[in-house]
Amino acid sequence: MPELRLDPVTNKWVVLAEGRARRPKDHVEIGHIQRDKPARDEKCPFCPGNEGATPPEVFAFRPEGSDANRPGWRVRGVPNMYPALTWGACAEPTTSGLFTWRPATGVHEVIIETPLHNSDIPLMQREEMADVVRAYRQRHVALSSLAGMRYVLVFRNHGKEAGASLDHPHSQVAAVPIVPPVVLEEVDGAGRYYGATRRCVFCDMVNQELEAGARIVLDSPRFVALEPYASRVPYETWIIPRAHVPSFAEIDDRTCEDLAATISETLSALSAGLDDPPYNWVIHSAPIGEACDRFYHWHLEIFPKLTVAAGFEVGMGLYINVVAPEAAAGLLRKYVQGGLAKEGIPRCGA
Amino acid sequence: MPELRLDPVTNKWVVLAEGRARRPKDHVEIGHIQRDKPARDEKCPFCPGNEGATPPEVFAFRPEGSDANRPGWRVRGVPNMYPALTWGACAEPTTSGLFTWRPATGVHEVIIETPLHNSDIPLMQREEMADVVRAYRQRHVALSSLAGMRYVLVFRNHGKEAGASLDHPHSQVAAVPIVPPVVLEEVDGAGRYYGATRRCVFCDMVNQELEAGARIVLDSPRFVALEPYASRVPYETWIIPRAHVPSFAEIDDRTCEDLAATISETLSALSAGLDDPPYNWVIHSAPIGEACDRFYHWHLEIFPKLTVAAGFEVGMGLYINVVAPEAAAGLLRKYVQGGLAKEGIPRCGA
Repeated sequence: MPELRLDPVTNKWVVLAEGRARRPKDHVEIGHIQRDKPARDEKCPFCPGNEGATPPEVFAFRPEGSDANRPGWRVRGVPNMYPALTWGACAEPTTSGLFTWRPATGVHEVIIETPLHNSDIPLMQREEMADVVRAYRQRHVALSSLAGMRYVLVFRNHGKEAGASLDHPHSQVAAVPIVPPVVLEEVDGAGRYYGATRRCVFCDMVNQELEAGARIVLDSPRFVALEPYASRVPYETWIIPRAHVPSFAEIDDRTCEDLAATISETLSALSAGLDDPPYNWVIHSAPIGEACDRFYHWHLEIFPKLTVAAGFEVGMGLYINVVAPEAAAGLLRKYVQGGLAKEGIPRCGA
Repeated sequence: MPELRLDPVTNKWVVLAEGRARRPKDHVEIGHIQRDKPARDEKCPFCPGNEGATPPEVFAFRPEGSDANRPGWRVRGVPNMYPALTWGACAEPTTSGLFTWRPATGVHEVIIETPLHNSDIPLMQREEMADVVRAYRQRHVALSSLAGMRYVLVFRNHGKEAGASLDHPHSQVAAVPIVPPVVLEEVDGAGRYYGATRRCVFCDMVNQELEAGARIVLDSPRFVALEPYASRVPYETWIIPRAHVPSFAEIDDRTCEDLAATISETLSALSAGLDDPPYNWVIHSAPIGEACDRFYHWHLEIFPKLTVAAGFEVGMGLYINVVAPEAAAGLLRKYVQGGLAKEGIPRCGA
């Protein structure tokens, strides 16, 4: 019997209907990403030697004293060639009757994660991935300080079905002059919970899930990876820091390293268990200048792209998930390599 | 320069970034649906002669006195074989700590629009399509009267990329025991507008758009088809009745016929102009038992599936649209066949 589950943060219902996975032609379709790629593709604008094919770099980890926009970098940040937002002075909205518009002021950057065209997160060394996470933090801090910006999102699209337009491993960072609706829903929901309980809903979630165990994928000294109770899509996975920290921009070096390890472990399990599925992931962090430090708690959300949202979801905003999060966690746990310390773990507390 | 446009109903921003349409491999990708199909497919559960392959029909337009679940029908309604919701007594939610669930009580039906496997809305006669719309209304009325149901959605998925699992032309109807979040946003937004102005935002939109003209696709005696100002996806198209009617269940026979004609014209233009793209459409109607008659106004929303929502959209709920609605309306107008009366049209008024 299908059930409705309530998301404890946003208060939105999700339909869990495992029987629908048996539909003709429309059971869970696992994406298969071609891995038959060279280490360097001379046509790829993100490959070393092609630095001139991107706008000039805004950031790089490269040997001290080496030239910008030349090979030798380990991680490289450049403006997006086809930005959804462009930088300029923030203008006030203009209204005409029912309709209001404003220039889409903002920043849209690409973080090229590795010089190797055929690498990917599950293939990277821990120290390489730690560099990538440090790059995320650095750009998050830099963009958060720009005048008029209200939100910075770090995100990653993997695979064509998830909207990745280039194969070379990369993430993106966007700064926008508004608090986006999905973020506002989380902030509002966490605020309501805090108002009623004086506690952080994310901290409580981590504690309740660790106690129950059924939806935990892995736990590490500073993070827990889990399938949320009201997972919207099959194998939706969240990586939540145990410590109550509102903004991703505030994480320290040691946390960067642990996050890199947790992302690697989690994506390796997803990749091994589901044969390298396409996915999107996003880092949700406190909006800039929003008084939500006591109840907002940054985290990373991974959405594998295994099913297609159709009229039911589009028309209602009510997701149908055909894989129970408990079953998803059970499968992913089998593919976690372990190796992360599981002792001396502090309890999450606001 | 990209711009942010505010949706006048939900107050959500949309990014209009036409420059992004030039991205490598990720410009607007037009879906091409294979039209190489037989009039009858013996393996198709929706084809005449295979009535036993579906659950028993709940409804049909067929010659008086003919047997149910036998060929001869023109339109046929059956329960979905793989329902997202199942019928039963509505139970109260159960809560354990942070988590709440309830049985997903509801109804999920399929409306088989024609006996012809290889037909489609643009190929149907007006009278065939009017039968389909009358079937929508009949099931909307029937499901709206079921105990505990708060919303009925009529929707259509066309093409695999839009989530259609079977080729045979069909729509779906779902009844759910909650007011879904997307609908609630519209009701809340229209309520805020009514509170401030004592007017219906949909009526005002029709009037302002008819005056401006730039985003109108076609106008008919009872309907206007337009590209909304803050279109979330390329070629998003709304069909809005001129008369202020809150619920789709209330439309009269003549309105069914006009709606059939307007849907046919609009989908024919989309199909001709964009080479039969995949799409979802949904009928948004007032929630059952919600006091919103003065400000809610039913309408139909069409979402062609030409681009992929990625991390930016998933993480923020902020859509990036790469085709201006004015350009989209200009193209679709070229493909409208005309023939709808444009005189003696009453103004829309709450």
